[in-house]
Amino acid sequence: VSLGAGGEFDLIRRFLAGSPDPPAGVTLGPGDDAAVLDGGWVVSTDLSVEDVHFRRSWLTAREIGYRAAAAALSDLAAMAAEPVGVLASLAVPGAGGVDAFEVNSGVRAAVEALRAAVIGGDLSRSPGPIVVNVTVLGRTQRPALRAGARIGDEIWVTGTLGAAASAVRIWEAGGDPPADLRAAFTRPSPRVREALRLAESGVLRALIDLSDGLAGDAGHLAAAAGIRAVLLERELPVSAAARAALGDAAAYAAALHGGEDYELCFATAPGALDGSALAAHLGVPLTRVGRMEAGSGVWIEGMDGRVGPIERGGFSHFAKGQA
Amino acid sequence: VSLGAGGEFDLIRRFLAGSPDPPAGVTLGPGDDAAVLDGGWVVSTDLSVEDVHFRRSWLTAREIGYRAAAAALSDLAAMAAEPVGVLASLAVPGAGGVDAFEVNSGVRAAVEALRAAVIGGDLSRSPGPIVVNVTVLGRTQRPALRAGARIGDEIWVTGTLGAAASAVRIWEAGGDPPADLRAAFTRPSPRVREALRLAESGVLRALIDLSDGLAGDAGHLAAAAGIRAVLLERELPVSAAARAALGDAAAYAAALHGGEDYELCFATAPGALDGSALAAHLGVPLTRVGRMEAGSGVWIEGMDGRVGPIERGGFSHFAKGQA
Repeated sequence: VSLGAGGEFDLIRRFLAGSPDPPAGVTLGPGDDAAVLDGGWVVSTDLSVEDVHFRRSWLTAREIGYRAAAAALSDLAAMAAEPVGVLASLAVPGAGGVDAFEVNSGVRAAVEALRAAVIGGDLSRSPGPIVVNVTVLGRTQRPALRAGARIGDEIWVTGTLGAAASAVRIWEAGGDPPADLRAAFTRPSPRVREALRLAESGVLRALIDLSDGLAGDAGHLAAAAGIRAVLLERELPVSAAARAALGDAAAYAAALHGGEDYELCFATAPGALDGSALAAHLGVPLTRVGRMEAGSGVWIEGMDGRVGPIERGGFSHFAKGQA
Repeated sequence: VSLGAGGEFDLIRRFLAGSPDPPAGVTLGPGDDAAVLDGGWVVSTDLSVEDVHFRRSWLTAREIGYRAAAAALSDLAAMAAEPVGVLASLAVPGAGGVDAFEVNSGVRAAVEALRAAVIGGDLSRSPGPIVVNVTVLGRTQRPALRAGARIGDEIWVTGTLGAAASAVRIWEAGGDPPADLRAAFTRPSPRVREALRLAESGVLRALIDLSDGLAGDAGHLAAAAGIRAVLLERELPVSAAARAALGDAAAYAAALHGGEDYELCFATAPGALDGSALAAHLGVPLTRVGRMEAGSGVWIEGMDGRVGPIERGGFSHFAKGQA
């Protein structure tokens, strides 16, 4: 989320994504939420950098580790893969003994909450920022991909949106976010259980996790299918805590463009999913937030019923003055 | 190598190594050069941080990427695994478009030199140092482990030692290393082909790559077997270029304690390996540098035939004033 959409980093990110032809032994190369290897292994890597993805004043060392690992594990949820192990690389300032232990204990807590384990890692001193890179390894015999949505499909999300981005907004304005917004940022819950259940149910046509904001990530599903996503303004499950703290307009913007909700966004055939029954089973809200249509890009149907394009892409915390 | 031996970081590194009981699906957990997963997948991660592992003034952006990836790939050689794919995470200062491309092109060059591919990655701005984390994925049906050496075994190394550490020493003293020393640091060659050939030949009882210095890494083989390593001072294949640049004593110290040679160190049964025949076949020197004995630690038999303990562990570039 930190780098926002567009600009040089998006270009480079695509470049980094690697070559389109995966080598022997690799079933699915770069371009989805994770690569898939022979034997059903799913692997992805995620970098968290101080003052880009978080500020030290916002989080304890343990929360820095927890959040970095949870964000990385969310990519396994996005493939409907079961987490098995992670490799955690930490760079911490100075001798930093206590901090590295604390960051690492946070990584472990996030990993163990999903019954996975730390199976390797690396450690370095850092001459500047805290850096945490987490590589996640999971398994599935049937990975859920970004591509596969069809015209007419419904677009769904789990949970509520905008709380984590609202916490960031309050911190960046010099405030102190209320506990529920703060927790959304510091302890995201990767939706692994929900993704596995949805995959089992057979309703998933396309799946992604919300790391760049709903508009951006629904746009990824649409782009992967060569169609357009139309979101319904009135249906967005905006976090009540975000509304209370920031007001409706800002909370709505955070829900649409804010990143790091780490909820799932997925497409199903029309009528295929009984959302309220599954939501009751999972104990997590499931909301139909839009539909796929012919076209391209991400659009929104406003309260007045009019459909217009919305700027594609996510939300950049620190874009101002730090380009 | 950067953090040296002993001290807090060694403790934390052990802590980071994870729990001793690997989860289901993981054949070999932390503690070796890489973890091993069901299906023969081998996975490891390696962090390179500016001003800890390298300085920007020493290397081009492309060399920073090449070296980081080669160092990571050396862990696959250390398992006698064939490289398949890597995930590269880059944090680069500022907008840094050109640099990120260049770093990434170096990663690719190192990966493609071993017929592997970049299959994923992440990218971030960095508020300070260049950071490159490379996760490597390889395959083998018979991983070569650190444990397995026996009393009486011979200790061998590939190549020559001390050149990379000598380049660092010259840079740190304000000089400009000669081209062959510089290249040893900037473009290490992971000994994948050599490791696969040695594994095929069936002579390997234990294998590690030289990232922390011969004394430290031979010590890891000995410790994994619960025995001691005795190195032979007169046999050390000290880099001739290092001798020419630094003199015999400093070159010898670099060979013994300098890190980042990325050569192989392995144990074989006495007389099992015809080193000169295999060296001729591979085009790489193979030198018997010691033997395993009952006891513990790392010892050296000097030119005078006397055996004494040597300080265990590697060599810390930047230890002074940067603890």
